[in-house]
Amino acid sequence: MDDQLTALTELLRELPGIGPRAARRLAYWFVRRDRTWIDRFVRVLSDAHRTVRTCTSCMRMFPGREGMDRCSICTNEQRDKHLLLVVEKDVDLENIERTGAYKGFYFVLGGTVSALDKDPDHKIRINELEARLKGADHELTELILALSATTEGEETAFFIGDRVRSIADQRRITVTTLGRGLSTGTELEYVDTDTMTNALQGRK
Amino acid sequence: MDDQLTALTELLRELPGIGPRAARRLAYWFVRRDRTWIDRFVRVLSDAHRTVRTCTSCMRMFPGREGMDRCSICTNEQRDKHLLLVVEKDVDLENIERTGAYKGFYFVLGGTVSALDKDPDHKIRINELEARLKGADHELTELILALSATTEGEETAFFIGDRVRSIADQRRITVTTLGRGLSTGTELEYVDTDTMTNALQGRK
Amino acid sequence: MDDQLTALTELLRELPGIGPRAARRLAYWFVRRDRTWIDRFVRVLSDAHRTVRTCTSCMRMFPGREGMDRCSICTNEQRDKHLLLVVEKDVDLENIERTGAYKGFYFVLGGTVSALDKDPDHKIRINELEARLKGADHELTELILALSATTEGEETAFFIGDRVRSIADQRRITVTTLGRGLSTGTELEYVDTDTMTNALQGRK
Amino acid sequence: MDDQLTALTELLRELPGIGPRAARRLAYWFVRRDRTWIDRFVRVLSDAHRTVRTCTSCMRMFPGREGMDRCSICTNEQRDKHLLLVVEKDVDLENIERTGAYKGFYFVLGGTVSALDKDPDHKIRINELEARLKGADHELTELILALSATTEGEETAFFIGDRVRSIADQRRITVTTLGRGLSTGTELEYVDTDTMTNALQGRK
Repeated sequence: MDDQLTALTELLRELPGIGPRAARRLAYWFVRRDRTWIDRFVRVLSDAHRTVRTCTSCMRMFPGREGMDRCSICTNEQRDKHLLLVVEKDVDLENIERTGAYKGFYFVLGGTVSALDKDPDHKIRINELEARLKGADHELTELILALSATTEGEETAFFIGDRVRSIADQRRITVTTLGRGLSTGTELEYVDTDTMTNALQGRK
Repeated sequence: MDDQLTALTELLRELPGIGPRAARRLAYWFVRRDRTWIDRFVRVLSDAHRTVRTCTSCMRMFPGREGMDRCSICTNEQRDKHLLLVVEKDVDLENIERTGAYKGFYFVLGGTVSALDKDPDHKIRINELEARLKGADHELTELILALSATTEGEETAFFIGDRVRSIADQRRITVTTLGRGLSTGTELEYVDTDTMTNALQGRK
Repeated sequence: MDDQLTALTELLRELPGIGPRAARRLAYWFVRRDRTWIDRFVRVLSDAHRTVRTCTSCMRMFPGREGMDRCSICTNEQRDKHLLLVVEKDVDLENIERTGAYKGFYFVLGGTVSALDKDPDHKIRINELEARLKGADHELTELILALSATTEGEETAFFIGDRVRSIADQRRITVTTLGRGLSTGTELEYVDTDTMTNALQGRK
Repeated sequence: MDDQLTALTELLRELPGIGPRAARRLAYWFVRRDRTWIDRFVRVLSDAHRTVRTCTSCMRMFPGREGMDRCSICTNEQRDKHLLLVVEKDVDLENIERTGAYKGFYFVLGGTVSALDKDPDHKIRINELEARLKGADHELTELILALSATTEGEETAFFIGDRVRSIADQRRITVTTLGRGLSTGTELEYVDTDTMTNALQGRK
């Protein structure tokens, strides 16, 4: 009966963080927009999709102009060539960039892997990262694995560390991870043993 | 710098339930789809928007074929002509329809009004509802205001009740609201006075 | 090593709603009170425990004076003798009494039973309830099972209904349960099928 | 009417983390215990209160025997005399001790202060801490302020740092705070700027 609405609902369910109920609500919301809004949305979406491209160096999405294949960070001569920082996804990169505390370069992994994954090479850009390290400027001295402090993040960091070890050793690149300790808002009474131990070791 | 991504993020922020962070995440998610997916999404969205239309009788969105201006519920001769049930939005109607417990007709209001609204007539389809009641079949005997048990829902029900009173009286239509009482999961220890009072009065 | 603190912590863990962490925190809190506070607490606790007694009629706890064996509700001649309402625990009774919407008598069950319980008679005061019904005033016409709208509450109501059926039939006592419907705050979009069905049937 | 129950409820409301509803529920729970349980509780509480005493050195509560005025940590010759760690309360000390990662000594502050407090000296044991530092063993080289990463915790650390500065300088004691960074479970996408900046600086 309601083919088109259902088809739209099903596509909307693919969006990250959208469950069946929210997808249905969004579908109705979209069909209630006026023609002008839909035309504008389709145009903006198509424009973004056509012009935003993957930086061949850091793999992040960036709004590229004709002939550009590297993003504004990767082509910025002022950035610190000693540092390369690996993140899971584009918004993580933006979040770090927003702090203003990091001046090196980035690499967007595109996902995480678990210890149980049979074919991790196809879930994240590990081959591209290896290639990037092999072709890296001689000034590169540190590879920072900036992953979440979750099981997924830790397993991914472990996997990468293992895979890049020989290249890193060969090229004298130190592999580091983000500092652990109290996050903003952590109450001492509820802190877990790992975090407490790290907070004690990292005192200053 | 990142015009197209930002433009897309801003449009996505208009979606119900999507904050700035989620909008950014969705924008990146969309531009990372492949061309085929985007084409399909644009086609499905445009199809839905073009074919799904507003039922001239109940005001819900429905997937209409050429020449149809009333939905499958409004044209169903088996439905109970004594009942007309007012809901805020399309998904509320679907939620009620899913119970199988209601066999009458519907009217989708399109929103809620607050006691402070200066121009409530433009926020909800109150004029259309009045027209619907004036033109109603003589068999109609009950108008059910099926609104949320929230301040918004109650103020909206109060507003409608006030506006339709004279027509309802004239045509001997009883105006009712949904029964109050314990909802699934309500624990007696934490129940509020209103709900408890209603649950006592509505015992059976 | 810390015998007394641990012993106190362990007793405090028996309190309803108190986990191991909260129990430890409470233990330290108690030992940090001054002597006066502890003396007062012990006196108030002992006084309450000694004077508060179980009403022989409704089984609630009440602050009894010498020679009183029934509470102020059970001895109140103004209450409605047609109604007897069954609750799980004392605070439920207080919560209902606070609404001012109920003027009949009460019976405190002392717990809930599950369909899987092998010896439900020892978990709740079902025998006492039966005795109460057998000895009830001839004016009693309705037994209200005021239990939570949870699986536990429903199974308990089912169990009681089953057990009191023959006495109720014999004495022409109707067994009712609290009305179901929208609770304060329920949003129509998220309401479950059962609650929606009840809300539709209970409209008024 | 119900004097004793109400009196008990009111005392129970003083317990940390117990609201009015929980206090009432606890009061009923206590009066429903049998005589044996109440006697045992009163005995255990009184025993704990009488025997548990404040360590004159670290100010924590400990189960002391006759003639002992310092706890088992403060009298342990194996602990690291270079370190003194300040915590807000007893359970924080226990939480740190549980990690096994700290081998120095402690000082329990007894609370926190805010920048707005007019008489902070009476809210926390700052004078006792100063005295402790003045009388400290010459081996003491570091004072660790182990407070929560909250506004309260930070303001307290700032207040202490300010007050102990001259003694610390004189005696060459370094004042440190716990390391900041990602806590267990922190997701990169949702991390705040402060934590991210600290995590970058503290990478290893």
